[in-house]
Amino acid sequence: MALARKLNYVPNAYASSLRKQKSKTIALVLPEVADSFFSVAINGIESVAQKKGYHVLIYLTHENFAKEKAILNELKSGRVDGVLVSVARETKHPNHISALQTNGVPVVLFDRVLADTITAEVCTNDFECGYIATKHLIERGCRKIAYLSISKNLSIVNERLEGYKKAIREYELPPDKDLLITCNNSEGHNHAAIKKSLSSKNRPDGILASVEKLIITTYHVCKALHLEIPANVKVAGFSILPSAAILSPPVTTISQPAFEIGEAAADLLFKILEKKDHEPENTKIILPSALIIRGST
Amino acid sequence: MALARKLNYVPNAYASSLRKQKSKTIALVLPEVADSFFSVAINGIESVAQKKGYHVLIYLTHENFAKEKAILNELKSGRVDGVLVSVARETKHPNHISALQTNGVPVVLFDRVLADTITAEVCTNDFECGYIATKHLIERGCRKIAYLSISKNLSIVNERLEGYKKAIREYELPPDKDLLITCNNSEGHNHAAIKKSLSSKNRPDGILASVEKLIITTYHVCKALHLEIPANVKVAGFSILPSAAILSPPVTTISQPAFEIGEAAADLLFKILEKKDHEPENTKIILPSALIIRGST
Repeated sequence: MALARKLNYVPNAYASSLRKQKSKTIALVLPEVADSFFSVAINGIESVAQKKGYHVLIYLTHENFAKEKAILNELKSGRVDGVLVSVARETKHPNHISALQTNGVPVVLFDRVLADTITAEVCTNDFECGYIATKHLIERGCRKIAYLSISKNLSIVNERLEGYKKAIREYELPPDKDLLITCNNSEGHNHAAIKKSLSSKNRPDGILASVEKLIITTYHVCKALHLEIPANVKVAGFSILPSAAILSPPVTTISQPAFEIGEAAADLLFKILEKKDHEPENTKIILPSALIIRGST
Repeated sequence: MALARKLNYVPNAYASSLRKQKSKTIALVLPEVADSFFSVAINGIESVAQKKGYHVLIYLTHENFAKEKAILNELKSGRVDGVLVSVARETKHPNHISALQTNGVPVVLFDRVLADTITAEVCTNDFECGYIATKHLIERGCRKIAYLSISKNLSIVNERLEGYKKAIREYELPPDKDLLITCNNSEGHNHAAIKKSLSSKNRPDGILASVEKLIITTYHVCKALHLEIPANVKVAGFSILPSAAILSPPVTTISQPAFEIGEAAADLLFKILEKKDHEPENTKIILPSALIIRGST
């Protein structure tokens, strides 16, 4: 030991991983990182991993299914003990996730989960929040509410949409397919799609944005079209934007407990890894979000 | 090979790393992630790492020097081939970085670099931008400009401060120590410090925020004190906030090329790793930022 110290010897991390058959590493697979939800969720995940003495590999799919599949496939190699995934907007089927599980690597999905998968999951009450936010817009006088989606198959976006539809039905507003706008991860496309809708004769008087970046795009479009928020159009969206209260006008948000979702997902992964409490591998945890009413509605 | 496929065999990543003495992994050590600069820089880094077939470990120091030191110490173990670091606000000395280099692990510093270190670095023209932004505030009529720092030893914050001081001297404004406000990573402390300054008799008529989060805090304080921006106080800050143009009022920013800084830092690290072009280990790359004038000034 004295000689080891003298020679400044440090044990090789991978020799140790190989001998113990533990990598002491987890992977975090995200669609993007430049979004308040994901950056705060990373903090929650890191806080748990750090306490456990684990390392965190980060991978971005950029919303691309092929990339997500390739990343998960590579993670079969023993590089990590477990994986946390928030799926890409393009992801429809859970086969690549099941394949990883079959290889003995536990997976926990968070926020963007997949319908009908036997996987541990942590998410928020998306259906309820879509309903509450839409109801709020209706009660503030909106009659033509556009729903901005980012995917036709992402379960959280569809849950939020089902909540929206429930409120529309309850208040007996006419359903209108033109009000369901599918955006993607091209800022140019989204700007054009929202502009087209807000320039039409039958333009919406309310907008519900299913993700943070679509709130910002909506504000930019309203500014370009000289539409006043909330006088001409009311805006609400799912977001934990730190600048929500200082926007012009401050924006009504459905605020997700991002840190807690990240933390709970990492906690659940470690419980599965440590086989504590015999936590089943299909545990579902739902952490509630809150509607915060501000000037935009 | 046929049997390997049949048995669904995947080579162990760490056995392979051990044999080749290459981890195919780099580490990214950041003070925080919930900041537009760092989240966009991660994208730049990831784009390069992904092309090279490298994995990225992410570590957050939460601005804590002891944590940064412990993380770098752990990275001596062969876990990574190289390290990208943006130092914590508490970091004063480069000894922990030199120790890693001595152990044969190349390091590239980006954005938050350290003065007087023999390390490859990528940053922006901080001195010049501090000067240009302060000059702009003076030309718009400010005579008492507060500088919001986040550290007394962080070189980029001090470079920005030196630029600020140069403009103050050039326009022969009286230097005032009360206008130099040191913030930290406690939102409560920062809010109180900025509020104290903006409530004082001799309150500033201009504010230059050295980092993004201090812009948001300044806006919140102005709102609480019913101070109008830009009528009562003009505000500018270093930031690539996606909502800059839709704040109330839109905020004047010094916008750093965050993606390009991340990309250049990763490129430089790989050049050192591959010993291409005999890139010296103390290369300094400076990518210029731009002043974007908006309603807050």
